[in-house]
Amino acid sequence: MKVSVVGCGAVGSFYGAKLCRAGHETHFLLRSDYEVARRHGIRIKSVEGDFSVRPRCARRPEDIGQCDLVLVALKTTANEAFGELISPLVGQSTAILTLQNGLGNEEQLSRIFPAEQILGGLCFVCLNRIAPATVQHIAHGQVVLGEFRRWPEPRTHDIAAAFRHAGIPCRVSSNLERAHWEKLVWNIPFNGLGVASAAGPAFFAGDNRLPNELHPCLGTDELLSQPDWLKCVRDLMDEVIRTANALGLNVSPALADQMIEKTRSMGAYKASTVLDYERGRTLELESLFLRPLGAAQSSGVDTPRLRGLCQALCLLDNRLRELLPRL
Amino acid sequence: MKVSVVGCGAVGSFYGAKLCRAGHETHFLLRSDYEVARRHGIRIKSVEGDFSVRPRCARRPEDIGQCDLVLVALKTTANEAFGELISPLVGQSTAILTLQNGLGNEEQLSRIFPAEQILGGLCFVCLNRIAPATVQHIAHGQVVLGEFRRWPEPRTHDIAAAFRHAGIPCRVSSNLERAHWEKLVWNIPFNGLGVASAAGPAFFAGDNRLPNELHPCLGTDELLSQPDWLKCVRDLMDEVIRTANALGLNVSPALADQMIEKTRSMGAYKASTVLDYERGRTLELESLFLRPLGAAQSSGVDTPRLRGLCQALCLLDNRLRELLPRL
Repeated sequence: MKVSVVGCGAVGSFYGAKLCRAGHETHFLLRSDYEVARRHGIRIKSVEGDFSVRPRCARRPEDIGQCDLVLVALKTTANEAFGELISPLVGQSTAILTLQNGLGNEEQLSRIFPAEQILGGLCFVCLNRIAPATVQHIAHGQVVLGEFRRWPEPRTHDIAAAFRHAGIPCRVSSNLERAHWEKLVWNIPFNGLGVASAAGPAFFAGDNRLPNELHPCLGTDELLSQPDWLKCVRDLMDEVIRTANALGLNVSPALADQMIEKTRSMGAYKASTVLDYERGRTLELESLFLRPLGAAQSSGVDTPRLRGLCQALCLLDNRLRELLPRL
Repeated sequence: MKVSVVGCGAVGSFYGAKLCRAGHETHFLLRSDYEVARRHGIRIKSVEGDFSVRPRCARRPEDIGQCDLVLVALKTTANEAFGELISPLVGQSTAILTLQNGLGNEEQLSRIFPAEQILGGLCFVCLNRIAPATVQHIAHGQVVLGEFRRWPEPRTHDIAAAFRHAGIPCRVSSNLERAHWEKLVWNIPFNGLGVASAAGPAFFAGDNRLPNELHPCLGTDELLSQPDWLKCVRDLMDEVIRTANALGLNVSPALADQMIEKTRSMGAYKASTVLDYERGRTLELESLFLRPLGAAQSSGVDTPRLRGLCQALCLLDNRLRELLPRL
């Protein structure tokens, strides 16, 4: 299979490296890491054993050409580059699989490419890009695959089989939208409150002004061990589940407790948006928070916690925070 | 004089058209308006009499080459394009004059070009781009010119003379930084509160959460006729003047009352940031609001109103507002 990876951060590099190791003709489309990747390959430092691969490296998608499978792993804040980066890779039988966070990525792809060529994949994995072309794999790794607005097809199962053959645990979901919302039940509280905790507890309790000084961000363990934050986590989970069910997705309310228990067992962990925030990067507000809030508002579901969280994150996601000292 | 105009919105087109009409070899660097400008020229519908000109039009700065004077009138949110757009226009004796709003534009130019080639100009003018390559001139038009971090030079007076000869009222300031801060005394309250008024009065009174519905923006006349908003206007003016004086710029506290009186005489007017907001465009937050707040914070001046205003504007300057209905 001829595979290309667009967006070679932690997620793209990790899954691309596994497919490359399994013998697929794998092309990485790179910008900043191009030289390092071309000279030294992609290095994965994994709890399951380190490995490195030498995929083909390109700076321009035209130099790769049409592929059987395009893995899209750009940060969602870069989605406006879809047309430029992906079009040269896509022919009539190319499958385009977005592994990106949150809602709306498949929809954005479908404005440029035929809907029937688009799949989504949810990655349940703890990764960290620790150096150019070098990824640390901390835990997990499953991908849940689904077709965009369609039932699974033979093609879906073929890709899942190729993934499993490459050492990627993979399951096919019959309802990609529901899978997205189930993942949001975790992502919204732990990514969102992890960042919003920088504004301190008074902030999220209703005083939406940024304080004079910013706090350190809280990890998942801290959010769960402090009763006020735990209440916020649970409220947010309930709001997300109620919204999903208003959309007809049939998500079990018990999922909240299951996820909280599972997260307790993970120990100290910082969600990806928290790492983005701490590194001064743009946050994936749109796909992870604003689109879900928009869905709640259009469905008439009242989500005051999610609304307050979105406001907190919008304030923290800009230059204003650079003017504040850190505690 | 060979002149180029970079950023052909209302300000760039208006002053560029006047220089062109006066016989200077004037080149417009255009993107979206290129075709219209090339075919029909630049049209100015002015209270002082309509006119149109046919400047040379280019899509790429390389096609213009080195100039005697570069007028920079980009929106400040596009300043990252300085290097790409301006470098091909600049030789050793080129004067680069930024006519942009707020603080920091000369500093950003000086990271790429020699400081002694940079000037700033403050435009006291009411303009509106009403169609491609078409600008409505509503009132005023003076430019206050100054050298970046230097006293005026013979060159400064030459440019001022060329402007006056082209029908542009122009005065040379001995202290560009003070001139910027004096203009901010007007810009911060009328641009800022004009937009923040969308969140309603309770919002600016201290409750920084966006309300369920957004209000229409207030014009200068409404901000001055409602006592609570007038108090905000005056508080903000005082904070800006105190900050300027902490920077050693010697701005008279009487300027606040003078500006309020002058603004009353203007009648109903919507500041440029308000028009940007109403059209869903990115706001010039950095140059008009965040840099002044940063200057206040580093000088140890307490500016609670400006701080609250910045938070309000950051919330209103993003997708969050698209999720709210309008009153």
